[in-house]
Amino acid sequence: MKFSDRINSMQSSPIRKLIPYADEAKGKGKKVYHLNIGQPDILTPPAFLKSIKDFAQEVIAYSTSHGSLELIDSIRKYYADYNINYERENVLITNGGSEALLFSFMALCDPGDEILVPEPFYANYNAFASCVNVRIIPITTKAEEGFHLPPKAEIEKLITPKTKAILVSNPGNPTGVIYTTDEMEMLADLALDHDMFIVADEVYREFVYDGLDYTSFGNIKKIEDRVIIIDSVSKRFSACGARIGCITSKNMDLMAQVMKLAQGRLCVPTLEQVGATALYTTPVSYLEDVNKEYQSRRDILYAALKDMPGVVCDEPKGAFYVVAKLPVDDAEKFVVWMLRDFDVEGETVMMAPAEGFYATPGLGKNEARLAYVLKKEDLSRAMDILKAGLEAYPGRVQAATTSI
Amino acid sequence: MKFSDRINSMQSSPIRKLIPYADEAKGKGKKVYHLNIGQPDILTPPAFLKSIKDFAQEVIAYSTSHGSLELIDSIRKYYADYNINYERENVLITNGGSEALLFSFMALCDPGDEILVPEPFYANYNAFASCVNVRIIPITTKAEEGFHLPPKAEIEKLITPKTKAILVSNPGNPTGVIYTTDEMEMLADLALDHDMFIVADEVYREFVYDGLDYTSFGNIKKIEDRVIIIDSVSKRFSACGARIGCITSKNMDLMAQVMKLAQGRLCVPTLEQVGATALYTTPVSYLEDVNKEYQSRRDILYAALKDMPGVVCDEPKGAFYVVAKLPVDDAEKFVVWMLRDFDVEGETVMMAPAEGFYATPGLGKNEARLAYVLKKEDLSRAMDILKAGLEAYPGRVQAATTSI
Repeated sequence: MKFSDRINSMQSSPIRKLIPYADEAKGKGKKVYHLNIGQPDILTPPAFLKSIKDFAQEVIAYSTSHGSLELIDSIRKYYADYNINYERENVLITNGGSEALLFSFMALCDPGDEILVPEPFYANYNAFASCVNVRIIPITTKAEEGFHLPPKAEIEKLITPKTKAILVSNPGNPTGVIYTTDEMEMLADLALDHDMFIVADEVYREFVYDGLDYTSFGNIKKIEDRVIIIDSVSKRFSACGARIGCITSKNMDLMAQVMKLAQGRLCVPTLEQVGATALYTTPVSYLEDVNKEYQSRRDILYAALKDMPGVVCDEPKGAFYVVAKLPVDDAEKFVVWMLRDFDVEGETVMMAPAEGFYATPGLGKNEARLAYVLKKEDLSRAMDILKAGLEAYPGRVQAATTSI
Repeated sequence: MKFSDRINSMQSSPIRKLIPYADEAKGKGKKVYHLNIGQPDILTPPAFLKSIKDFAQEVIAYSTSHGSLELIDSIRKYYADYNINYERENVLITNGGSEALLFSFMALCDPGDEILVPEPFYANYNAFASCVNVRIIPITTKAEEGFHLPPKAEIEKLITPKTKAILVSNPGNPTGVIYTTDEMEMLADLALDHDMFIVADEVYREFVYDGLDYTSFGNIKKIEDRVIIIDSVSKRFSACGARIGCITSKNMDLMAQVMKLAQGRLCVPTLEQVGATALYTTPVSYLEDVNKEYQSRRDILYAALKDMPGVVCDEPKGAFYVVAKLPVDDAEKFVVWMLRDFDVEGETVMMAPAEGFYATPGLGKNEARLAYVLKKEDLSRAMDILKAGLEAYPGRVQAATTSI
């Protein structure tokens, strides 16, 4: 009995695959600070559960395939505040941002087609690409350059007749990069010059620090018919377990195609849509407070990393991750060693080895992604433990090597 | 800007695509009896909402990728009552039966690979197949033969080196067929002889009438490592909007592969899993009452159809659908005509034209799927209206023609 090549070629999630080692550590009584996964500790706005508790339908019936109109209208209002004006037909509710990404891949690409993605990138882009036989072509970016994009001519070299889209996460997971206006203009021009779509994963839109300006790809007029925005309530409202996302585009032909995919899987859960609709009534002050909290966490994390000899990273400007080069032989070995063989007074730290966030073989081997999703005291403590771990690690090298 | 061939080739849902005509009819004040969609009117067990109302977590966090252990254990207990003994690793929670089907296709087939499916079949099998480039090869079955399977030799003619599985819905949607023990043995032998999986869509397991014995493919020992069961709470507990299903198999290698797909989309909604766990505490008497209710609805529907001149259908033995040949030129035209141009005292009926449930071009053109999901009075009334419609329809033909 054989399984498909596409599933054989899929890697396990780099964020989740080392969890057994964490479980083992906990089994031995160690406390593990989880910096490996973007599960925030921020409270979900109580409106979510409250609206669901008020739900009184006696039959939990199918929703419509495009999603509930109340939720769609709430999302339209949210976008209107960012100067992106959508009709109802421009928004389709999905099972998290995950399904929105999968739908984009299916709608734009046949097997063997290609999507350009700046690497390191959210590792599950690989999963979605593999399972529908799409090839991710990496645009390599570097820790030393704050993960900003290479010049247009270099990206152009990667484009073939099979390239259907550029997929970018902005603010960037896992890098924390915020693209400059020039970078976004450059990507927009590439899309126009080479008849491509831009798939903009903007789920971290609210997580931009230092008062930096943030522009959505939805605000670039000249490409508005070739932009697909991937969105989700997961991070915005700390509601990862609701699995409510959406795919939005002003390209009505695209939305009609995506509707066929939505009809195939019937609908998104009814109750979660009720809850998500309520989330969009959350006062702006909630988002502002959350932003401040993350900024101060970022400050703690970045200051601590700068203070660790041999660690290379630029200050992350958005999302709640950083990719850091570590002075170690192999980041995965180091993460496993931290879980199995190291602790400070019974406590240790888990990170995500960054190799799984790269498509180019060999890159990211000495890098890890850290999510700053813990409260400040815990984060400080985790940084102290990491520093001590780096000092004690037998596979330590002089300094983090640069990219091969 | 071009979209993918795979999405261009997808058809719209035959169950949902005529909804605009129903909306138009309702806009003109007509009452529409919906026999087009399998949305039951049965109350969802109150334990579903109750358990969710008791949910008190302050952060709606990611669940694990395989699903909550409480829900998995509930499902294991349910299966144990059917003599199918699963370990936790044999059960993975999915976004409805839909995602379980999609995962099966992805895990077993590369683009261009084939799955045998008795036709007519649940139309969304086509959707899942198209979007991952799998070819559905139909095993044609006929209304005149109660949609039972052709002999083994005929099915064998359809098998090629690309055939990876046989997918069957049993009890059958849209046909209402229950396969005999001989038919199931035959499919099991085919799977063994030709190294294929059986993907058994058994979501209608409780809907078997006339005291008929029902065997799950999970009970056939000799193929237990090549059976995948697709399951869902949607129909069993009238909880279609919960979107909780599962994929189960005793083949551990398969489950490990499917886990990679599950990790890619992170998890299934947390709250809906809490609700679904509570559903499995529903007393057996609920399921027995529902079964009796559907059986009496089936009786009303079937008696009425038998009484309509020119209509051909066999008594459905399971699920809550029947596919009937109608004495009309074209079932889709007839359905549209019923909605736009016909009513009895301001009331009309909507059905699903059956052509979309076939893969062989031309088949099903004069057939419709009727779902008996309305209460008995409404169903009787709907049958009276259908009878009057068939008499008045300008495109009526002498008798339903047999298959081309």
